[in-house]
This record gives sequence, structure tokens and C-alpha cells, in this order.
Amino acid sequence: MSPRRRPLVRRLALLGIGLIGSSVARAARRAKLAGEIVCYSRRAETRKSALKLGVVDRAYADPAEAVDGADMVVLCVHLGAYLEVGRRMAPALAKGAIVTDVGSTKQSVIRDLKPLLPKGVHLVPGHPVAGTEHSGPAAGFAELFDNRWCILTPAAKTAKPAVNKVTQLWRGMGAHVQVMDARHHDLVLAITSHLPHLIAYNIVGTAADLEQVTKSEVIKYSAGGFRDFTRIAASDPVFWRDVFLNNKDAVLEVLGRFTEDLHALQRAIRWSDGQSLESLFTRTRAIRRGIIQAGQETAAPDFGRLAAASKR
Amino acid sequence: MSPRRRPLVRRLALLGIGLIGSSVARAARRAKLAGEIVCYSRRAETRKSALKLGVVDRAYADPAEAVDGADMVVLCVHLGAYLEVGRRMAPALAKGAIVTDVGSTKQSVIRDLKPLLPKGVHLVPGHPVAGTEHSGPAAGFAELFDNRWCILTPAAKTAKPAVNKVTQLWRGMGAHVQVMDARHHDLVLAITSHLPHLIAYNIVGTAADLEQVTKSEVIKYSAGGFRDFTRIAASDPVFWRDVFLNNKDAVLEVLGRFTEDLHALQRAIRWSDGQSLESLFTRTRAIRRGIIQAGQETAAPDFGRLAAASKR
Repeated sequence: MSPRRRPLVRRLALLGIGLIGSSVARAARRAKLAGEIVCYSRRAETRKSALKLGVVDRAYADPAEAVDGADMVVLCVHLGAYLEVGRRMAPALAKGAIVTDVGSTKQSVIRDLKPLLPKGVHLVPGHPVAGTEHSGPAAGFAELFDNRWCILTPAAKTAKPAVNKVTQLWRGMGAHVQVMDARHHDLVLAITSHLPHLIAYNIVGTAADLEQVTKSEVIKYSAGGFRDFTRIAASDPVFWRDVFLNNKDAVLEVLGRFTEDLHALQRAIRWSDGQSLESLFTRTRAIRRGIIQAGQETAAPDFGRLAAASKR
Repeated sequence: MSPRRRPLVRRLALLGIGLIGSSVARAARRAKLAGEIVCYSRRAETRKSALKLGVVDRAYADPAEAVDGADMVVLCVHLGAYLEVGRRMAPALAKGAIVTDVGSTKQSVIRDLKPLLPKGVHLVPGHPVAGTEHSGPAAGFAELFDNRWCILTPAAKTAKPAVNKVTQLWRGMGAHVQVMDARHHDLVLAITSHLPHLIAYNIVGTAADLEQVTKSEVIKYSAGGFRDFTRIAASDPVFWRDVFLNNKDAVLEVLGRFTEDLHALQRAIRWSDGQSLESLFTRTRAIRRGIIQAGQETAAPDFGRLAAASKR
């Protein structure tokens, strides 16, 4: 590859530079996908941290300054901030610029952003299905998207070259890309991500509130299964508040089914219906095998925790 | 230490040699806690595997033969097999022998075993809070109990030396030991282990049954949180069936609270009550910090999965 080869993106503007934004910066830099990478962050501390980590070339306190002259803009702020950041950046967007994002819901993003964008700016909503329970620019890493899926939900009439460019960006950062309808995305993610987080937050809350069991007991005996739930229940509270507020219908739909199924299980326990229990518990094993085979999960027992702990 | 020092246990009989039984064998051997280790297993294949792995000195198809001459007997079979195995071993138990176990519920174990044991045999029910999603003798490892808690629930009138010996056995295998009331154990474990498993099995079942989302989609986008649940929902189905059948009251109690809390969350989503959501999501972070500080969990992001995956 010639060192003078033109990068895919001339100026990449990341609006928000937390776990995901800073991972995009690192992954884009790893693959030399952008000529320069700039960011916007509301907080001076975060801007300082991003500059110190060397993940961006410049950091701005104003979204308009960050997107000025950018050919690719990626919104990486919480869903609740899209409207405000969108309003502030819109007048500064260059004609032909592509606006994409990493938000966990997609219908709400289209609802919030589409009306704000000037003519000639392309909207290609995106969602990399990847993350950890940690937050902030220091938590990001270049490998976060490797072998993970990024879903794009452009409108049918979106210019193909814009969709292609966002696709190339994510492939360059190590991800697989799937295009789907925004409404379908919101339902798929409601079951594979939003409901799991809701359930995890809920059980950790229930445990904390049990007056017959002390918090110290919950902690000591958490290796029996509970600790698995605490990881995702340690995720960014504002981020997740915004997800639930912005994907209400799909979350309520899958939650209704979850509760219905749980009542059936509850009944099986009450009536000592061992056969129903065993049959469900057998069925669910296959799904994990599928996830491991698809390379979306480690096959190491206990997520490979033992190895992680012994390396400390 | 003199090589001729008498081991803590002369003959250790393990009834059942799956994940936990074989880990007990390995951990006891690692610390030279037993003069000899024998096992009972119903299945010829499992006995052969245990002998081939070298985790036991002898393997029997009859519980009575296995406990013959043993000073310490550890039941490591599924809870549903306690009555039968108990009946078959009881006549062969030596006077002064200690019977303990590793079962996940404790009131049911006392109910099943206590009436069967001859006078002069000590019952010290136990439960090491440790495990992985894998099953069978090959899945065991000597480090499984290191820094984990083992709960003992002896009756108040149980001979102290018997309780002490079981305590020493677990400490020798790397565990911390806590003595508590069987009823309290069953409630604590209902929240820290049984309910998490029930919820995980349930959500994986709900996802599998959603007709609008394909199984392939559930698998591809599982890194959004869902895959965490599939690990514990891949645990031994018969084992877990027996847990729920044998800890009905406590599980139904905590499940009732869980559902109540979930309904409150559902209502907060429906009415866009962001403050309630954020407040719960903030509260639950602290519990994970406590678990990590107590050494019951790795602090590595994503359970250290990235490291586990890159080592493949």
C-alpha cells in the first residue's frame, strides 16, 4: 500500500468520545481509515482525556466546529443528546457529508436527526453491537468491533455511495455489516440487548432490596450466577435510561412475552412440573452453542474468567 | 511437612463424579487431603472417564461399595438422586463416618438424608458456591473452589469435630467456609443463584420463541448483552430442574419480588419516567464494585473475554 494512498475518510468527526467514540477513533486509526480525526465533547475533562490519550487530533466544545469540513460525522453521544447535538451541528455540515451514528435504537435516531439535516447531507444510521460495561474515552480499544456486527438502517432512497462508505468504514474497523429496516433493528435489539439489560438491572435491584439477605451475603455468594448479571447492570445509567425511553414499544413487546414465559415457569415450579422445566433448560443449551460457533462468544468455561483472574 | 503425615481424610468417597465431584477429587489431591479417593457413578462411561483422568483411585457402580470403609462421604449427585443413593449407601456407612454433600439446596438435603443415616454417622450438609456451565468429570479442575465460599448447614447438635473436619477439607481445597442455618442458605442462594438461572433460562427461551426475530439474528447480535445469559442457560438441565423442585418456597418468594420490581420498571418505561430508570441503574453499579473488591469476580472488562478469545 502506498503511503500516499488517499484514506477512506478525509476528516472524521466524532461527536462524543466515550467508550464507543474512542474505540471508533482507535479502530479507524489502526486501519488508517481517516486523514484526521476530531471530536466534540461537552465536558472539558473528556476533551482533555481524549487528547492526552492521543485518540483524536483536535477536540472541540462545539459540535459545529467539530463537523466543519468533515466528510464523515459519527454521533457517539447518548440518545438523549441527539436532538441538541443535531441542532447545533446541522448548520455547519458540508454538502455531501455523511452523518452516521452508533446509537442502540434506530427509529428514534431517524425521528430526531432526519428533520434537522440540510439537503445534500446523507443520513446512514448505524449500530455496532459491541461494548463493555466500562465508560469514558480511556475505556475504548481498537479491537472492540473485531468480528462483531454493525447494523446499518438507511432509508430506501439513501444514496448508495453513502451507504457503501459507511459500510467500508465499519469493515475497515473489523466489523461485519448488515443492512436492515430500522423498525426490525429495534425489535431484534430489544431482545438481544435491551431486555437483557433491563432484566439484569432489575435482578440486581431486587437482590439489593431483600431485607432478609444482607448485601454482604449477596456479594459473597454471587459466584452462583448472580455476578454474571452485575456486569451488564454496571453499564452507564444515562446511556441505558435513554435506550429504554427511545425504544419503548419494542421493549414493552418483548418484556410482555418474557413475563408471560416467566409465569409459565413459575407455575411449573409451583406444581412440581419437572418435565416442563427440564425441557426448557435443555432447549436453551443449543443457542449458546450457536453463539460460540458464530464466533460471538468464547468457548472457555466461565467466559475465561479464571484465566483473566490468574493474570492479575 | 513430613511425607508420612496422616492426611485429613483416610478414605474419601465421592458419590457422583461430574463437574463438582471431579473438582473435589482434584482439589483434595492437590492438597494431599485424602489417603485415597474412590467414587460411585451410576454410568459405566463416567466411571471409566474418571479412572482414565486419574482423579480417583477406584470407581464403583454401587454406592454401598464406595462408602465401605470411608471416613468421609461427599454426595455429588443431582438433588433428585439423594434419596435413592442415600438409601443404597446407608447400610454400609461406618460408625463415625461423616456424610456431607455439595447440593445447591440444603433443607431438602436434610429432609432426604437425615432419616436414612444410622446412629453414629454425622451429617454436615455443604454447598460450595462455585461452578461453570460445563458438566461431567472432564470439566472439573482443582482451582474451582479457590477463593470461593462453601456454606455448611449442620444441625445445632451436630458433633463439633465433624463440622471442623468438613471445614478443614474445604479450606484445604482453597475455599472460605461459612456456617449458616439451612433455611437461610436456601433463601440466600435463591437470590444469588437460583433466580439468576431461572431468569437466564427464561430469556433465552423467550428469544428462541420470538417469531419476528430469527434464531440466526439472535445469535449474530448476541454481543449486545444476551450472550451473557446464555452461559448460565447452558448449565446442566437435570441439575437445575432438581434445584427448582427442591427449593420451591424460596424461589417463588424471590421470584415474586423480582416480578413486582419488573412491573415497576415496565411502568417507568411506559410512562417515560427517566428519573426512576436512571436511579435504579445507578444504584446497581455499586454491587458489582463490591463483588470485584471481595475477589469474587474479575475486574477485566467483559469478564476478560477478549483475552480468553485471543488466546485461542
